[in-house]
Amino acid sequence: MRSNEVKNRTNVDDIKSLRLITAIKTPYLPDGRFDLEAYDALVNMQIEDGAEGVIVGGTTGEGQLMSWDEHIMLIGHTVNCFGGSIKVIGNTGSNSTREAIHATEQGFAVGMHAALHINPYYGKTSLEGLVSHFNSVLPMGPTIIYNVPSRTGQDIPPRVIHTVAQSSNLAGIKECIGHDRVEQYTSNDIVVWSGNDDQCHDSRWDYRATGVISVTSNLVPRLMRELMFGGKNPALNAKLMPLMEWLFVEPNPIGLNTALAQLGVVRPVFRLPYVPLPLAKRVEFVNIVKELGRENFIGEKDVQVLDDDDFILVGRY
Amino acid sequence: MRSNEVKNRTNVDDIKSLRLITAIKTPYLPDGRFDLEAYDALVNMQIEDGAEGVIVGGTTGEGQLMSWDEHIMLIGHTVNCFGGSIKVIGNTGSNSTREAIHATEQGFAVGMHAALHINPYYGKTSLEGLVSHFNSVLPMGPTIIYNVPSRTGQDIPPRVIHTVAQSSNLAGIKECIGHDRVEQYTSNDIVVWSGNDDQCHDSRWDYRATGVISVTSNLVPRLMRELMFGGKNPALNAKLMPLMEWLFVEPNPIGLNTALAQLGVVRPVFRLPYVPLPLAKRVEFVNIVKELGRENFIGEKDVQVLDDDDFILVGRY
Amino acid sequence: MRSNEVKNRTNVDDIKSLRLITAIKTPYLPDGRFDLEAYDALVNMQIEDGAEGVIVGGTTGEGQLMSWDEHIMLIGHTVNCFGGSIKVIGNTGSNSTREAIHATEQGFAVGMHAALHINPYYGKTSLEGLVSHFNSVLPMGPTIIYNVPSRTGQDIPPRVIHTVAQSSNLAGIKECIGHDRVEQYTSNDIVVWSGNDDQCHDSRWDYRATGVISVTSNLVPRLMRELMFGGKNPALNAKLMPLMEWLFVEPNPIGLNTALAQLGVVRPVFRLPYVPLPLAKRVEFVNIVKELGRENFIGEKDVQVLDDDDFILVGRY
Amino acid sequence: MRSNEVKNRTNVDDIKSLRLITAIKTPYLPDGRFDLEAYDALVNMQIEDGAEGVIVGGTTGEGQLMSWDEHIMLIGHTVNCFGGSIKVIGNTGSNSTREAIHATEQGFAVGMHAALHINPYYGKTSLEGLVSHFNSVLPMGPTIIYNVPSRTGQDIPPRVIHTVAQSSNLAGIKECIGHDRVEQYTSNDIVVWSGNDDQCHDSRWDYRATGVISVTSNLVPRLMRELMFGGKNPALNAKLMPLMEWLFVEPNPIGLNTALAQLGVVRPVFRLPYVPLPLAKRVEFVNIVKELGRENFIGEKDVQVLDDDDFILVGRY
Repeated sequence: MRSNEVKNRTNVDDIKSLRLITAIKTPYLPDGRFDLEAYDALVNMQIEDGAEGVIVGGTTGEGQLMSWDEHIMLIGHTVNCFGGSIKVIGNTGSNSTREAIHATEQGFAVGMHAALHINPYYGKTSLEGLVSHFNSVLPMGPTIIYNVPSRTGQDIPPRVIHTVAQSSNLAGIKECIGHDRVEQYTSNDIVVWSGNDDQCHDSRWDYRATGVISVTSNLVPRLMRELMFGGKNPALNAKLMPLMEWLFVEPNPIGLNTALAQLGVVRPVFRLPYVPLPLAKRVEFVNIVKELGRENFIGEKDVQVLDDDDFILVGRY
Repeated sequence: MRSNEVKNRTNVDDIKSLRLITAIKTPYLPDGRFDLEAYDALVNMQIEDGAEGVIVGGTTGEGQLMSWDEHIMLIGHTVNCFGGSIKVIGNTGSNSTREAIHATEQGFAVGMHAALHINPYYGKTSLEGLVSHFNSVLPMGPTIIYNVPSRTGQDIPPRVIHTVAQSSNLAGIKECIGHDRVEQYTSNDIVVWSGNDDQCHDSRWDYRATGVISVTSNLVPRLMRELMFGGKNPALNAKLMPLMEWLFVEPNPIGLNTALAQLGVVRPVFRLPYVPLPLAKRVEFVNIVKELGRENFIGEKDVQVLDDDDFILVGRY
Repeated sequence: MRSNEVKNRTNVDDIKSLRLITAIKTPYLPDGRFDLEAYDALVNMQIEDGAEGVIVGGTTGEGQLMSWDEHIMLIGHTVNCFGGSIKVIGNTGSNSTREAIHATEQGFAVGMHAALHINPYYGKTSLEGLVSHFNSVLPMGPTIIYNVPSRTGQDIPPRVIHTVAQSSNLAGIKECIGHDRVEQYTSNDIVVWSGNDDQCHDSRWDYRATGVISVTSNLVPRLMRELMFGGKNPALNAKLMPLMEWLFVEPNPIGLNTALAQLGVVRPVFRLPYVPLPLAKRVEFVNIVKELGRENFIGEKDVQVLDDDDFILVGRY
Repeated sequence: MRSNEVKNRTNVDDIKSLRLITAIKTPYLPDGRFDLEAYDALVNMQIEDGAEGVIVGGTTGEGQLMSWDEHIMLIGHTVNCFGGSIKVIGNTGSNSTREAIHATEQGFAVGMHAALHINPYYGKTSLEGLVSHFNSVLPMGPTIIYNVPSRTGQDIPPRVIHTVAQSSNLAGIKECIGHDRVEQYTSNDIVVWSGNDDQCHDSRWDYRATGVISVTSNLVPRLMRELMFGGKNPALNAKLMPLMEWLFVEPNPIGLNTALAQLGVVRPVFRLPYVPLPLAKRVEFVNIVKELGRENFIGEKDVQVLDDDDFILVGRY
């Protein structure tokens, strides 16, 4: 299954240096299929506003609600249209090693620059099982490992990371545990991206995280770029905090999906089990936008509250 | 997609009364495919030893490592061969509402008696999203909802259960949170099965749980039946405790898979990310079997330690 | 993947003796999913009117328009609901050997009594390839091989059949080539079912075919049973000829689909690329029904012409 | 599902002008998965030797033996690595309209320049059904329709082509029926590629076919380019005839697969139902290569006869 074409070879170091990676939203048509036109607009805005990479089909992009053929197609599409302008990191991880192997082979075959791998959520496994799982996919190409125990039910302990870091393909860790863990890695020369928008400023400037894999940057990419590139800036960080808190009032990407629909950049279509934030929260978002300045958000339409009836929820698609 | 055939109609009350349900192991051939011959033997032993139901493709049966066609096939196979002797409960839940809808329709179409549904693990959702998710599948047939925050990263709170309990198809809850939660439901006439083998005796006899959905009963079905049917029996419960603790020293079904291989009733084949318990633990299991009595365990071969080399781990299958 | 359960073992001789096998129609809901309620009614009418077997997902049942999970589900459903009353023969053939192997394993696992296998249509292969293809699936259970060059583009020559007939699982041949070929097989003690309704009477009574795998019996099962069981009956055969000719004026199952909708026993829903027969033909069908007698057809509603607008054509489902 | 990105827009005229399109072989690893390294080498040799387009996953490339996710992945891979140097035409046709719609959407999303569409083989349909089928996919992008009754069992008559030619996306027809049909189209300004290597010279120079979609060009791309670009050349055509006849002694791609393995450019791995040509034919091929000149064939190793044992046939993969 291997390809040696130059176009399929990405240097791990090119991944290690990325500071702002956006976990990009997947927008839908009213029948639940991908809205590629809207998706392309979102990616273009990320490129214009300075994001250096996108996670395709992450939890934010609802990879968990995609069939694998949709997922790989979206990776291939993103590489084909935007791969020269932005790094494409496919979330080809799975709680099934078989699926992770298959998807990662396919993702690299269609040209993704790196893979994002999660530990086996829900099913979980032993530490030895974790190592076997990651070692099954690491040889395929540059890899970011994602640790988010609040979703997976299981922390990936540093000794597992240190073991798999023997592979030169390990680009780094997307870490959600907090500053101490970040520092533990960065002091051992392991690259870290913060997985928490509200911690990323401090992780970056106080604990030597390389950058962030961000949800918030879907909405305000330039501000997030400033936060990661512009030097320590607690004022900007504080200014963004209300938005970040609003975004995570319910499990992500519920807030993000609602916000993007309100900004008029995606259709108000939700794949279940996600449902929009309630009216009161939507009103709050309008105020947050005004506070931060509409011009800092993507899109050009006025931000709207939207009625409950404006949203389409799809279970079969 | 509906069928009105009598054979496809199971009374919810028939599900509500089950006391011993085994989350049945899925055994594999060396190439990773299902070993139906071994599976049939396992189910037959459950029937002979008094289990009243099986969960097909639960986390114990590694539904998370199956393709959906394998999963539905195994449900259909179990119904076809054993549906007259034991209740077949298909784990057709998913963190994707689409998948849960599709699998549950198919599971009922091939004759399963009830569905087991999990809340959307990993992706998670809001409480309103939980209700939408469960309400998408409840109309299809008798349903058990499974709450296991240590796997899903999210507790299903009682108010969600009380909302979806308006459906007459809700048979009850497989609950892993502990006695207080069990009592909270049983005092409101909601059927509960303990999802923790080490708590099931007390849940059953002190907190009015109906029974257990058990991992341990894969190994010692008669003893587990006695525990659920024979009246309060702290002595037996205490006697079983070392086995139960051993089984869960690593995420289930790692212990169970190791034990069944050591008992000679399944081939020592693991689908990754699961790997066998280490040698020291395998020695421990032999001692536990001797302590409890080989005759209380399923199978007729001598229990063996097995070498590391005896195990086959498969990533592609 | 093997199962030894008695319920999964069907005697080849039980298949060899079947005289009337119906290639059963798959009816759809308006969104293109299976209409199991209508399907169950169709199967029940077949059982009541004397059909001894059904082909599930044949070309008539539009297996070529099913995903494999739908296909296996329908086989499992049919076995579960009707397997005690009628033989269930799953069309688990494919032009891909991998698919044929996988589907046939799954079909037997969910309890089908026999498999129908086609030679690799469209892709085609050499005679040696044909033998390899059939030998990959014959060990799994009772098998009928289907020869229909007008669909596959390639005749299965008798020497291929004689080679694979070394397997005791070969129940016989569904043959569409004509009487000479039928006789060539029956004179060598190879069981044959006619695959052409308009030839089946003569094949049965003059050339020792065992019976028919019929499309027409979807509509008039009792008459087709009479034709196969009641002794030579050229009058009945002649009487049925206009119906048979009408049914095949366009590639099957276009005529059948149209007819069943007109009889009110299935919803007028077509999965593309099938479209209904034009109005003039639908008028003709009403006359054919009156000629033969409405009471000889299944269902109890009046036969209708139906307007073009009554039909729903679905491309995405 | 639409994308407006420039990279996803190919001009139909760019497709209409292609003279040499190779129906590229898909090579396999010993376990049956794609051998992308070998595939990339094959495509590179096509580019170097002057082919202007490749059909990915055609009947020659054994699309009929791929899962759809493999198929789309291979299209995406080809676009990503070679899309700047050669036109990538994905065979996203199917006998199921649903599959054709889904695959074609995905194929264009991952950047293919055109789709190849077959009429519904095996299942077949009415003329009106043919039109509905093609009209379901034509709006998606540049399209070549493929007529090969010897495989499909059904000729696409000119009136169907004339009807669907109302779509500006129809690039032309790959026609296998012969010179009269070719002329019928070209005299009506419908672009035609010959689907028969042994007729393509005459179709091109005597009947105004634009070019060929070729199997033989997998082996001798420069000679085939000369045949299509270099003006009338009956001598060259005659010289190639023994190779062409040898290639089609059994259903394609049996000959091609055997030849490429003998040339040492692909591993001798066959996905069933294809099996290699017998020894005598392999000896013949060595002689044909010597006759035509090894230097005219792709690859640099000596041509070999290969033993029966050198070949690996895979049924599960």
